[in-house]
Amino acid sequence: MTVSEGVLDANETIAEANRSDFDRHGVWVVNMMSAPGAGKTTLLERALEGPTGVRVGVLEGDVQGTLDADRLAAAHVPVTQINTDPGFGGECHLDANMVRSALPETPLDEIDLLVIENVGNLVCPAEFRVGEDVRVMVHSVTEGEDKPLKYPLMFRTCELVLINKIDLLDHLDYDLERFLANLDAVHPGVEHMLVSAKTGDGVDSWREWLLAIAKPGWGA
Amino acid sequence: MTVSEGVLDANETIAEANRSDFDRHGVWVVNMMSAPGAGKTTLLERALEGPTGVRVGVLEGDVQGTLDADRLAAAHVPVTQINTDPGFGGECHLDANMVRSALPETPLDEIDLLVIENVGNLVCPAEFRVGEDVRVMVHSVTEGEDKPLKYPLMFRTCELVLINKIDLLDHLDYDLERFLANLDAVHPGVEHMLVSAKTGDGVDSWREWLLAIAKPGWGA
Repeated sequence: MTVSEGVLDANETIAEANRSDFDRHGVWVVNMMSAPGAGKTTLLERALEGPTGVRVGVLEGDVQGTLDADRLAAAHVPVTQINTDPGFGGECHLDANMVRSALPETPLDEIDLLVIENVGNLVCPAEFRVGEDVRVMVHSVTEGEDKPLKYPLMFRTCELVLINKIDLLDHLDYDLERFLANLDAVHPGVEHMLVSAKTGDGVDSWREWLLAIAKPGWGA
Repeated sequence: MTVSEGVLDANETIAEANRSDFDRHGVWVVNMMSAPGAGKTTLLERALEGPTGVRVGVLEGDVQGTLDADRLAAAHVPVTQINTDPGFGGECHLDANMVRSALPETPLDEIDLLVIENVGNLVCPAEFRVGEDVRVMVHSVTEGEDKPLKYPLMFRTCELVLINKIDLLDHLDYDLERFLANLDAVHPGVEHMLVSAKTGDGVDSWREWLLAIAKPGWGA
């Protein structure tokens, strides 16, 4: 018998344990990822404004501080904070074990949808499954069209790409067609939406997409 | 006798070896860091346009591809590419050993200034010294004012903060005073410059700052 286990296998084992806990509580889980400042928190705030008909909770990953958690708590959803900073620079991503440590403080019995806002980073978060059902990736047009080619795993392992800050397109040298071609090169056919958290463009579609996950028949 | 060594100590040892090689060749080294898409490459292109009077080389860190290296090669500086992707998602930062592996291909005898463009990420690059003399951090105003509070080590361990894309300030809800207060909270008194790679605002000061490093009397 050969026993061979690496770090990623350990993460996968814990991710499956998380998944099984989520399933038992009937909670659907979204892992939101992006570069720093792409707009995850604001897009989430916009999606959760007003009555949603869905009981949503948020698990907030940051190196330090509770800035985003404080913002989301104002939207009257239960927020659990994970800080990845053990005293030095901190971890650049959430892994399955960090999420697992936060579960005792997360009211799984009282929610139908858990949104995990990952640490802002286009590399390592994509490498660590945490027990999610779907991954949403936020790309800001201010970052340039080349990002799918430079960070392919991130763009390849998500179910939805939100192309954010489109209100700035007129002020940028950003070629949207080229971005879409680059995206298609690394993840052919992936669903995407053009959005602006600032003007509200596309936010209804994003909100609908997100909330549908927790409604009967999703994924069927 | 107690022998105790962690990963960071190994990195520090190799960083010192790099530093000693740089010193022997009379090469000054700048480590440039930022979030993805903040504008490191473009600011470097702008700084190296035309005759500079300094022999500059670039060491380019990316998860995958040679997009930035190709752009910089067009500026007629020698560029060495490091790809951190070993087959899966890749490493999210450069460490001293990766830089060391690239030294045999870097013409240290023919340059006075080596600019290392790190992988786009606000967490781990700050945790790994690679043998540099100074660190330059590029912050794009599109990322929001809260970044120093969320990624304190990055903002704390650099000698210069370039505040980029200021041409977009009129189109953003970005409070520059608040950003500067946040920056001052984590790194009191750090030098900063307002720049726009697009309009050229502040680029002369940045160029002058960068090239001065390789001129007699710097740091004295």
